[in-house]
Amino acid sequence: MKIRLGPKDILFPIPAALIVSGDSKKPNIITVAWIGMVSITPPIVAISIHKSRYSYKLIKKYNDFSVNIPSASQFHEVDYCGIVSGSDRNKFTDTNLTPLGSDKINAPIIKECPFNLECKVIKKFKISEHTTIFGEIVETHIDKDKIGAECGTGIDISKVDPLIYCSTIGEYWSIGKKIGDSFKAGIKIKEKIIREK
Amino acid sequence: MKIRLGPKDILFPIPAALIVSGDSKKPNIITVAWIGMVSITPPIVAISIHKSRYSYKLIKKYNDFSVNIPSASQFHEVDYCGIVSGSDRNKFTDTNLTPLGSDKINAPIIKECPFNLECKVIKKFKISEHTTIFGEIVETHIDKDKIGAECGTGIDISKVDPLIYCSTIGEYWSIGKKIGDSFKAGIKIKEKIIREK
Repeated sequence: MKIRLGPKDILFPIPAALIVSGDSKKPNIITVAWIGMVSITPPIVAISIHKSRYSYKLIKKYNDFSVNIPSASQFHEVDYCGIVSGSDRNKFTDTNLTPLGSDKINAPIIKECPFNLECKVIKKFKISEHTTIFGEIVETHIDKDKIGAECGTGIDISKVDPLIYCSTIGEYWSIGKKIGDSFKAGIKIKEKIIREK
Repeated sequence: MKIRLGPKDILFPIPAALIVSGDSKKPNIITVAWIGMVSITPPIVAISIHKSRYSYKLIKKYNDFSVNIPSASQFHEVDYCGIVSGSDRNKFTDTNLTPLGSDKINAPIIKECPFNLECKVIKKFKISEHTTIFGEIVETHIDKDKIGAECGTGIDISKVDPLIYCSTIGEYWSIGKKIGDSFKAGIKIKEKIIREK
């Protein structure tokens, strides 16, 4: 039996990404759960930020940002960067996170995050009080020790141990177990249909 | 030590949502991992779909869609709906998933998915071969048995057991354990800073 909850911004599981903007002299971090891929060729990611945010001003000024995927163990730092404004505080100092020079953008990446994307703004789209910012991914980085020898694409998810955010409900979760591979798991149903023909 | 992977569409953890479009007579399901919230007031979700997809044509025709969040146990069905085209097959019949009449849109919701959003298209934005479609969430539904008596906002994540997708790497994962609450976990760092002043 279903019950109605009304029009609500509920979507989970989602990432809680640390977005860095500004330059190497005065970089800032903001936590963004409203993030998603929108294109493969070229690779483009979209983030949505409220117009009142300090990071919104920085991204507007420098036209780039980095996306830094935290591990589950970093949830205190992730939450802190979402509740404090960078106009008042240096969140790198406060959290002991380290800005690392990026290759192709002004904004640094975060050393302690296992996985990082360098993004150049290609479009901004005002949707309400929030603006959706499209960033072309121009470089990606991963910690060498998060690469598993036996992994096809290189990245070992259990070593990255990504933080999972359940938005609106407001809960941080860790990742569980691998249960299957995409573009393979569905073949089981396809074969069953062929057998029953 | 970091290594570079080049410009790549890597972002995880993300949901693998089942998007239903069409009407009650001929609804279709597509699996979309490229989904994210973009606004609270009003609540708006964005999905990105390749222009070649049958679902893209249906959403264009009916101007609405439902977002259905699957449980981890449904990963075979989720994968199947991502590898087969609805122009050839009835994916509801193939997967034994049940279309359930929605309240405010043409497209049905999926009975077996614990959580569902009804969305009306308010904007389409061509970004490359993919189009980002903004849908205002006009109603939400949840299985009554996924509501936990002790949960503040009602939804018990462990009962929903949402499927987690690690895109590009192409792996389905289950959720692990709750590790903290948002807007609370960061206060620990805030208090430490005040103490050290």
